[in-house]
Amino acid sequence: MQPRTKQLYTNYTTLLQKAADINYASAVLGWDQEIYMPVKGAEYRSRQLATLASQAHELLTSDSYGTLLASLSSADGLTVREQCNVAKSLEDYAKAKMLPSAFVEELSKQTSLTFNAWVEARKMNDFSLFAGPLTNMIALKKQQAALYGYVEQPYDALLDDYEKGATVKMLDQVFAGIKEELPPILGKIKSAQQVGNDCFKQHFPKQQQWNFSIEVLTAMGFDFEAGRQDYSEHPFTTSFAPTDVRITTRVDEGNFASMLWSCIHEGGHGLYEQGLPEDQYGLPLGAATSLGIHESQSRLWENNVGRSAGFWSFFYPRLQKRFPGPLANVTAQDFIKAANKVEPSLIRTEADEVTYHFHVLIRYEIEKELITGQLSTSDLPARWNDLYAYYLGVRPKDDKTGVLQDVHWSHGMFGYFPTYTLGSFYAAQFFQQMQKDIPDLDNKIATGDLYPLLEWLRSSVHQYGRQYNSEELCKRITGQGLDPRFFIAYAKQKYGQVYGISEW
Amino acid sequence: MQPRTKQLYTNYTTLLQKAADINYASAVLGWDQEIYMPVKGAEYRSRQLATLASQAHELLTSDSYGTLLASLSSADGLTVREQCNVAKSLEDYAKAKMLPSAFVEELSKQTSLTFNAWVEARKMNDFSLFAGPLTNMIALKKQQAALYGYVEQPYDALLDDYEKGATVKMLDQVFAGIKEELPPILGKIKSAQQVGNDCFKQHFPKQQQWNFSIEVLTAMGFDFEAGRQDYSEHPFTTSFAPTDVRITTRVDEGNFASMLWSCIHEGGHGLYEQGLPEDQYGLPLGAATSLGIHESQSRLWENNVGRSAGFWSFFYPRLQKRFPGPLANVTAQDFIKAANKVEPSLIRTEADEVTYHFHVLIRYEIEKELITGQLSTSDLPARWNDLYAYYLGVRPKDDKTGVLQDVHWSHGMFGYFPTYTLGSFYAAQFFQQMQKDIPDLDNKIATGDLYPLLEWLRSSVHQYGRQYNSEELCKRITGQGLDPRFFIAYAKQKYGQVYGISEW
Repeated sequence: MQPRTKQLYTNYTTLLQKAADINYASAVLGWDQEIYMPVKGAEYRSRQLATLASQAHELLTSDSYGTLLASLSSADGLTVREQCNVAKSLEDYAKAKMLPSAFVEELSKQTSLTFNAWVEARKMNDFSLFAGPLTNMIALKKQQAALYGYVEQPYDALLDDYEKGATVKMLDQVFAGIKEELPPILGKIKSAQQVGNDCFKQHFPKQQQWNFSIEVLTAMGFDFEAGRQDYSEHPFTTSFAPTDVRITTRVDEGNFASMLWSCIHEGGHGLYEQGLPEDQYGLPLGAATSLGIHESQSRLWENNVGRSAGFWSFFYPRLQKRFPGPLANVTAQDFIKAANKVEPSLIRTEADEVTYHFHVLIRYEIEKELITGQLSTSDLPARWNDLYAYYLGVRPKDDKTGVLQDVHWSHGMFGYFPTYTLGSFYAAQFFQQMQKDIPDLDNKIATGDLYPLLEWLRSSVHQYGRQYNSEELCKRITGQGLDPRFFIAYAKQKYGQVYGISEW
Repeated sequence: MQPRTKQLYTNYTTLLQKAADINYASAVLGWDQEIYMPVKGAEYRSRQLATLASQAHELLTSDSYGTLLASLSSADGLTVREQCNVAKSLEDYAKAKMLPSAFVEELSKQTSLTFNAWVEARKMNDFSLFAGPLTNMIALKKQQAALYGYVEQPYDALLDDYEKGATVKMLDQVFAGIKEELPPILGKIKSAQQVGNDCFKQHFPKQQQWNFSIEVLTAMGFDFEAGRQDYSEHPFTTSFAPTDVRITTRVDEGNFASMLWSCIHEGGHGLYEQGLPEDQYGLPLGAATSLGIHESQSRLWENNVGRSAGFWSFFYPRLQKRFPGPLANVTAQDFIKAANKVEPSLIRTEADEVTYHFHVLIRYEIEKELITGQLSTSDLPARWNDLYAYYLGVRPKDDKTGVLQDVHWSHGMFGYFPTYTLGSFYAAQFFQQMQKDIPDLDNKIATGDLYPLLEWLRSSVHQYGRQYNSEELCKRITGQGLDPRFFIAYAKQKYGQVYGISEW
């Protein structure tokens, strides 16, 4: 590298890493806020977070940074990975500059208002308290889409914030697969002999649940010297560096499933964060590539691994030892069936692997309609309820178990939901590839040897950070872009076994 | 206020509060670092803290801030409290500008080196590993004193960082009182019938200790909606706003004293932080006035209140109920005696209220000698041991229980130790005044009614923030500056009772 290029690149990393320091500091404050902060601390915590955000934003939108990036993008002598960092940073910079700071401020204020209205509306079980602020939020999101610009649809511009490169065109195709393939699968499952999951709904003491969660996370390869688990109301993962990744879980003593799936799920997110390359700290190549890929990691561990027969052939005897009371008369086979029970329901976060995607589909369709203006907020609850009745055969009795259940829209996160489904589908496609790549994978899992699986994820996904976007990564790994048929095949195989369905 | 002045003052508060946001964010990171951070998180946490520090420093030393302060200091129409904020900020600004950033950086690097050397030296129980880095640190502290400037002694300039206005002249006078008055008191106690403290050294289960700590803190008035307690290896207090104050405690199941005194002590610090005026957030009047006054709050609660007969006449029956096993045959009187046992020892943090001040005196004398150059680091351990033998009649057998016991010097904190003694002395003087001001105070304490006591501290000390420095505050409250005789009188009264000494 030429001395001048070298100096420019050093200036670039210095600035980005400084911004990362500030953003990771925000993450620490956010983590504490969710888990430990006393109630009266909220007001000042908000302003501290706002100040940190503006300090980082200032660095990342400064003209001097823009000049630096311009010089670097035409400089000679950068490695491929360095060039990639610079290119991604240029994209980020251009995008950040598209939103005037007055708009960012207005959006931030509207987010507070809309979130507070959502909390209140939810408490009162009354969507009408949320409708006005949500309407204002949607207006701002339309404005944001216009500021970003788009080729085909305003919604594309919003999607890009959560899943770079995703478009309505691509998602419509993905969801077309769901609309065509999943209903008959669900239909067959419904007419088969039903399985029970009462074994989860017994008394499982908190401390023993915690101990089992640590055992599972350790087996997954989560490094407790580079992270920790805490309790929180809503499980989440956050990172302060690849060497300090925090996951949380919740424990319901009357329902073992609550801790179990959230722990493995967040563990999957946590492993991605721990696997990001440390030498790229603060740079694009040191960050996760997209929400969809992040979700592929959590769901691969939770569903493809954690709900598999192999996984429990190793862990079930261990689990039984910890809970001899509740599990004495539950066979491993019954436990696995319970873990894979399919049942249409009203609440997304409690849904099984099949019906889950209808929950996402409903939100996706509604978001598109809200952003185009086809649907007004006043008609939203009715539309919601109709779609639930149509796709899942269940109709919410009130707003709380219907349209008010998710926090996302109150935060203005339009375009986020589809990443959940993308995650499942990428997971199925990756897992199938992994089974090809790792000889004897199923047996390894069945003996508790999860290390080869983690190594595969490290070398196929984690190590690259943002070097490849979701679709590029998928092509590198599996030789083709996202194809929902992998998920459909996986579902048929699994539920064929669970429900004794031999022909689909 | 004139519109222009008003605008200037608003700009001033905006800037200071932004810096406060960043510094409080650092405090959150520091809190997590001590309590929850996994071991591998240390490296990136350091750099995140360094970045936040430099962001705040940049704001607080910017030329535009200097100009703003200059305009405000000559502006008309500010209230007395506003003027006071501006005046204190001018002092802070001038002081911050005295250290060139190259020097600050060097000091920060040397601090890391010296701290690491101290950790290693302590582990190896070998002062020689610490001597070199400490010598370099002392050289930098001399340089710092020269940069700050001073009238009489370089050490005065360093003291000012921890206790504004304190000087060698003033401290020599304070410690002269100790050197004259305390040895005969200690002598009489030594020749009296000794008291035992074995009652503390039984098995006290962790959770019950914790529960008792919450009971005591609640009675003290600590607001758990505006703060919390956690476990940590070394108890400490930190604040993220007056509405979010964190204290920590440690529990030794084999020694109840460890949790008990640290909990009440940190509770006292925490109450000061919770009592600071919220409307002065980020401004000088929203911050504690000095380390000495902070320590007066913790020590007043810990010693003057927490080790008093009245306090335990209320709490001891409650304590006995929680620990019926260990305390069944311990009378309240024996318990109070145990809480006030005096015994010369090697470790400062475990010392009683009388011998404690010799520990501080020894460090104070050594610091003065190191800064003047009278004492070289190579002679330091011998000097330390000789002073322990001289003042306390005990001689450390090794460096770990001697010169390497405290972290302060490794952090370059020369001038910090005296504030511990100042804290005790201010506490004694304040408490005597409080007894005059609150009719029937002792009886109130004896019935567990600690609220009047807290209210007195709130209105006499907490509400002012930095409006008055230590000595000004002391004069306002007690009508005179610090006078060690209040402490001596308090000690004679207390130990007269504990040791049955009727004549001093």
